[in-house]
Amino acid sequence: MTYTLILLRHGNSDWNQKNLFTGWVDVRLSDQGIAEAKRAGQLLAESGLKPEILYTSLLTRAIQTANLALEEADRLWIPVKRSWRLNERHYGALQGLDKAETLEKYGPELFQTWRRSFDTPPPVLEDDAEYSQVHDERYQGIDGEIPRTESLKIVIDRMLPYWFSDITVDLAAGKTVLVTAHGNSLRALVKHLDGISDDDIAELNIPTGIPLVYELDEHFIPTGPSRYLDPEAAAAGAAAVAAQGKK
Amino acid sequence: MTYTLILLRHGNSDWNQKNLFTGWVDVRLSDQGIAEAKRAGQLLAESGLKPEILYTSLLTRAIQTANLALEEADRLWIPVKRSWRLNERHYGALQGLDKAETLEKYGPELFQTWRRSFDTPPPVLEDDAEYSQVHDERYQGIDGEIPRTESLKIVIDRMLPYWFSDITVDLAAGKTVLVTAHGNSLRALVKHLDGISDDDIAELNIPTGIPLVYELDEHFIPTGPSRYLDPEAAAAGAAAVAAQGKK
Repeated sequence: MTYTLILLRHGNSDWNQKNLFTGWVDVRLSDQGIAEAKRAGQLLAESGLKPEILYTSLLTRAIQTANLALEEADRLWIPVKRSWRLNERHYGALQGLDKAETLEKYGPELFQTWRRSFDTPPPVLEDDAEYSQVHDERYQGIDGEIPRTESLKIVIDRMLPYWFSDITVDLAAGKTVLVTAHGNSLRALVKHLDGISDDDIAELNIPTGIPLVYELDEHFIPTGPSRYLDPEAAAAGAAAVAAQGKK
Repeated sequence: MTYTLILLRHGNSDWNQKNLFTGWVDVRLSDQGIAEAKRAGQLLAESGLKPEILYTSLLTRAIQTANLALEEADRLWIPVKRSWRLNERHYGALQGLDKAETLEKYGPELFQTWRRSFDTPPPVLEDDAEYSQVHDERYQGIDGEIPRTESLKIVIDRMLPYWFSDITVDLAAGKTVLVTAHGNSLRALVKHLDGISDDDIAELNIPTGIPLVYELDEHFIPTGPSRYLDPEAAAAGAAAVAAQGKK
């Protein structure tokens, strides 16, 4: 008996398009992102995998991706759970900044630290800043403090409790679980599942819009390597993510 | 302290377009239905009403409607609960039949009885029929027997327990609840809320795509008449529903 877990990173958003740091800013999918989400649904349908429950973050671009993919796979009716714990990493004061300008202004070292350091968060985003989420209705009353900035380590620390409290419970009930989330919340989960070191996780890039499938044993440990439903497109997509922010 | 309940009937579907009895057959919204759903979202946004939890049936056209409306109202992130108890009335052996042909074949009396009788269900749909749902994955393991036909009375009997067990609990917690469902599951709820008699409910038609708002007291009884967010369009829409099946 193995459990099936499917991870899906949302497709290209309006701000990916504009090369801005997004984080918790609630931007929408671009037309390209919409096409990616539908393609993900086709890949799911062709694979024969049948998600039985959906998990999403509270961010519109992840929910749009899930809705479009499940509509394409004729499974819009499955139950849904959402949590801020699956949100993208909060990018602190970088939210809303242009990636190329930030690289030029602060230099490649600081830039790469903020993007890929395991435990150094970017500077804190002030509560009265335009792109702060402290007053956003959806985060009032969450079981934790609304972030002002996050490192990948902080993302792991807020994501993993949800993995254990909720997602693994549905897996243990034998359900095929689809998690539609973000680059960094999914990197956090993949790091845990694949036992990737704090150093090596910097090099891991998850492509957008391509379902990533894990088979897990009764302890929720992978029984073998995970697989993308479209390996060629996944390799090209990961390379594109790695190149982001470079001019 | 009053509670706010918003009811939304899904828009025009592919089979409304073709004038077929639909019931539990899982057809999709037509382009017109998609436009209606987006318009419903705009009406919600303009009204200042903020749904805090969404209820849907297990049918794609209701879920599409909710997703499109909430995307338009920027509230795709609210929690969602789905239940077969909010499904459209099961139309039995009529599912998949042309409404005008059925009227011609069986005559106006039987036709009107099947459409609007309170407690006479249409003939049973056989389990091996093309449009039977007894083998549909989504209904396996539901807390009840999968219907083969339903009258409005049967719809009330399977819908009201869910109203009391789940929807009123969220209302009592002070949440603004949006229920996106179908002509007959919503007629069942409106009958209960407004205390409409078994005879008079035959004349009640709920228009598609226009949010209907109730303010309820602590006993979940309306504090006044319900209101459509676009009363003129609602009157025209209700007349159009009443005219259905007429040539």
